[in-house]
Amino acid sequence: MSLSFSFEVKDTDLLGRVGVLRVGDKTLETPCLLPVIHPVNQIVPTHKLKEMGFRGLMTNSYIILSRRKEEVYRRGIHNMLGFDGIMMTDSGGYQVLEYGNLEVGYREIASFQASIGSDLAVTLDRPTGYPQSRRAAEDSVEYSLKNARATMREYRDSDTVWMGPVQGGLYVDLVTRSAVTLCKTGFEFLALGSPVQVMENYMFAELVKMIVATRKSVPYSLPLHLFGAGHPLTMALAVSLGCDTFDSASYILFARNGRYMTHAGVLRLDAMKYLPCSCPVCVKTSLKDLREADSRERTKLIATHNLYMLKEEIEACKEAIAEGRLWDLVEEKSTAHPRLHDAFVELSRHSGILVEGTPLLKDKGLMLRSVQDLERPELASAKRRLGSMMSRSSSGAILDSLWDSVPTGKGRRLVGSRSSFDTYRIHPVLGPYPAELDFIYPFTQVVAADDIEGRMSAKDAALRLMKLGYKSVKILPEGAMENTSNKVRSKRTRRGASPSLRSSSVRPRLLRHL
Amino acid sequence: MSLSFSFEVKDTDLLGRVGVLRVGDKTLETPCLLPVIHPVNQIVPTHKLKEMGFRGLMTNSYIILSRRKEEVYRRGIHNMLGFDGIMMTDSGGYQVLEYGNLEVGYREIASFQASIGSDLAVTLDRPTGYPQSRRAAEDSVEYSLKNARATMREYRDSDTVWMGPVQGGLYVDLVTRSAVTLCKTGFEFLALGSPVQVMENYMFAELVKMIVATRKSVPYSLPLHLFGAGHPLTMALAVSLGCDTFDSASYILFARNGRYMTHAGVLRLDAMKYLPCSCPVCVKTSLKDLREADSRERTKLIATHNLYMLKEEIEACKEAIAEGRLWDLVEEKSTAHPRLHDAFVELSRHSGILVEGTPLLKDKGLMLRSVQDLERPELASAKRRLGSMMSRSSSGAILDSLWDSVPTGKGRRLVGSRSSFDTYRIHPVLGPYPAELDFIYPFTQVVAADDIEGRMSAKDAALRLMKLGYKSVKILPEGAMENTSNKVRSKRTRRGASPSLRSSSVRPRLLRHL
Repeated sequence: MSLSFSFEVKDTDLLGRVGVLRVGDKTLETPCLLPVIHPVNQIVPTHKLKEMGFRGLMTNSYIILSRRKEEVYRRGIHNMLGFDGIMMTDSGGYQVLEYGNLEVGYREIASFQASIGSDLAVTLDRPTGYPQSRRAAEDSVEYSLKNARATMREYRDSDTVWMGPVQGGLYVDLVTRSAVTLCKTGFEFLALGSPVQVMENYMFAELVKMIVATRKSVPYSLPLHLFGAGHPLTMALAVSLGCDTFDSASYILFARNGRYMTHAGVLRLDAMKYLPCSCPVCVKTSLKDLREADSRERTKLIATHNLYMLKEEIEACKEAIAEGRLWDLVEEKSTAHPRLHDAFVELSRHSGILVEGTPLLKDKGLMLRSVQDLERPELASAKRRLGSMMSRSSSGAILDSLWDSVPTGKGRRLVGSRSSFDTYRIHPVLGPYPAELDFIYPFTQVVAADDIEGRMSAKDAALRLMKLGYKSVKILPEGAMENTSNKVRSKRTRRGASPSLRSSSVRPRLLRHL
Repeated sequence: MSLSFSFEVKDTDLLGRVGVLRVGDKTLETPCLLPVIHPVNQIVPTHKLKEMGFRGLMTNSYIILSRRKEEVYRRGIHNMLGFDGIMMTDSGGYQVLEYGNLEVGYREIASFQASIGSDLAVTLDRPTGYPQSRRAAEDSVEYSLKNARATMREYRDSDTVWMGPVQGGLYVDLVTRSAVTLCKTGFEFLALGSPVQVMENYMFAELVKMIVATRKSVPYSLPLHLFGAGHPLTMALAVSLGCDTFDSASYILFARNGRYMTHAGVLRLDAMKYLPCSCPVCVKTSLKDLREADSRERTKLIATHNLYMLKEEIEACKEAIAEGRLWDLVEEKSTAHPRLHDAFVELSRHSGILVEGTPLLKDKGLMLRSVQDLERPELASAKRRLGSMMSRSSSGAILDSLWDSVPTGKGRRLVGSRSSFDTYRIHPVLGPYPAELDFIYPFTQVVAADDIEGRMSAKDAALRLMKLGYKSVKILPEGAMENTSNKVRSKRTRRGASPSLRSSSVRPRLLRHL
């Protein structure tokens, strides 16, 4: 008998998605974090994790095998650990990395994981790690693939869902080889390895490349796990690139070192003066009490706080996906560190694949406040569509350069189609576009910062129109077209000239957003 | 008898500060928010506000005067409203704005506020509002100043602390006139008016100009209140410009309209699918329960949640000031909307005054990830100091262009002073600087994003050195100086050449930051 498995996608934005992972009769809403629990010394009890809303946990099969083997055979992993949700077990590959080769083979690990009732189990791998030579990286990939294929051959029908470990580290061609091979082997759920050291070294742009390489090699519908990525600042980034599940022990590892997570980064409790948090731990405990608690209690309190922070991050990602503003969330997070900014720059280079999951139509205006925003997938797909819509039907064009204050939504009629002019407006990124597209997302549903807005001059836009074959392009710098008339009147005041409401058309609908 | 008043500054960053405001025997730690409470229909009870940690509240004297006059004379404002912290009363000026001129004069308002026991009271003003003609703005300023002077003359010794209302709206010269005149009149606490409509219209850059105009006109030590600014996205901005206290009814006004605050903006409860929050309200109540609660209960729950969010924002500002990373917090918040980005750009134009409160030495590295960051006050003051340190003592200079990977902190000795060369390095913003400054903040205590790092080329830096009179400048692109020797060796690998840890010198010390 094999455990049934499915992944249903509900909402998408960029490559991120809200989905439901079904493993037998259990479900997980993704994106989701599976806190890593220690099979022997778990400081935050599993019933507390369940109460906090965690529906899946991760633990290490190797530690159980070496320290609680008989008990787990007798009781099963769920009963032994006191958790009835989804249990994922790591292969022990991380131990291989930490302590050198261990004397277990893929068979022992696989049959053990299946017997104890793991819902999700990783085949025995060897994490590539970082830094690593090309040769060693290749070896780790081949070793992991060999075990994965053998496990799939021999244990495919066991009562667990096998996850294929993607190795290769910073060598993206090896990552690609891993991912492609695992898919061919029949894995329906992959897990990208080796991000921990990459993240510890602040190489977030490299992390982006690793995830992109994986996502490009596998079907869009395939769920992807990212090992060990439990940092509040990288969660949205990883989600935006199509990582669906995460496991992490960061909540407890950080807590042991007195490191307190916030949405803007991790702080040292020792150095803090205030608690900028309202989670159940922080509303009940003062900073002083937290500092003076005995070591185990303090660790438990900070770990619990950290878990609340991570959970908030995940929920914020889900909400951002549902509302179509995941890009904005990733950008916000990227300001926390220049290396995260580098990662955001790297992400902005991949709008070609980010369009896959980005809705063509969004409720909210598109925000442009950085050069990276000019690469937004919403604009990339608009640009693609715009190409076919730029057709000339007259010999002359009117270019209404005041794109920013077009009073859309007020029933204004555009110049009639029998006019002797085609009418265009200037979008700060897309350039001139037919005025008929005013109501089509995202032509006027844009809010641009002042230093972005003037990017395309009326002159450049006019030159672009001339290339379409127009004999004349009339630029309307201060005026506008009025209702059904062709007369050009100067009815709009230039922005900034007096303290008046600017671009009333576009901004009020965004009030709700702020 | 007059109420004693003092303001003590504890920590500063940019123009923001953590301070203690003493009014009689009561204290407020600033920055702080005074939630506005309704004297007749207060949905979140005052004891709950106290329990949440709010030590000061604001209420409207005009509503009390018109609806609970006898009771408040009998019981006093604290007893009547059930709050023993600091009570601030507005003058009713806002009512003047909303409902036109009311039939009360400055005397009635002043004697009323003093009699009922307001700790902080605003003299009768007329908010300038927005949009407003120049003439009307002038009138509002003169009316407010006249009342302020008269109140100060007649009621200076009453048992309340008078706050001087700064009006003028977007006309910054009028704001300046207001602030200067109020200071001269003897006010020790000013309150900047009219931001509500400016903020509602997303004119955050204008808000920056208003606050800067005020701060430039008054002593650094003078505390400043900002009326009605209770938005989670603008709090850090206002704090960074030297606003110390805020009052706001936003928590309840937003709640009435089903608007739910988050750190990244305000969402509509109707449209939400997830609750990205762990405050006491949100851990106990599901989104469904929140939606289905009866109207008053729902308003109360959302209002309480909103207050927790605002309190977290304030605590985050305090922590950021204490840690010297307020600039970073403001920048992070500015990504939430292009108009906030505009405001951040405007703020970055004022590093001349932001240096006033910015410590010369910080524990944490300086983050550079945007062009605005190049205007950081830390760099502005370093640039000032650098000018006097660029003196030539040899005829030749060595320019070590690999600033980014200088292995500081490893006891490396620089080229001896008797060398025939002066040694320089390149800072991406400050340009060439004497290598002796490596250990002086912020020359190497910088983490720059890739798109910032290469801003100053070795060639440009060399040209700048030539202008100091050097006969030769030797550029060391790949090599470095070794210990006590003058020999140039190529010991460092070029960044990015292989997957190796880059700039190990600077980044590890920042690990704690992320």
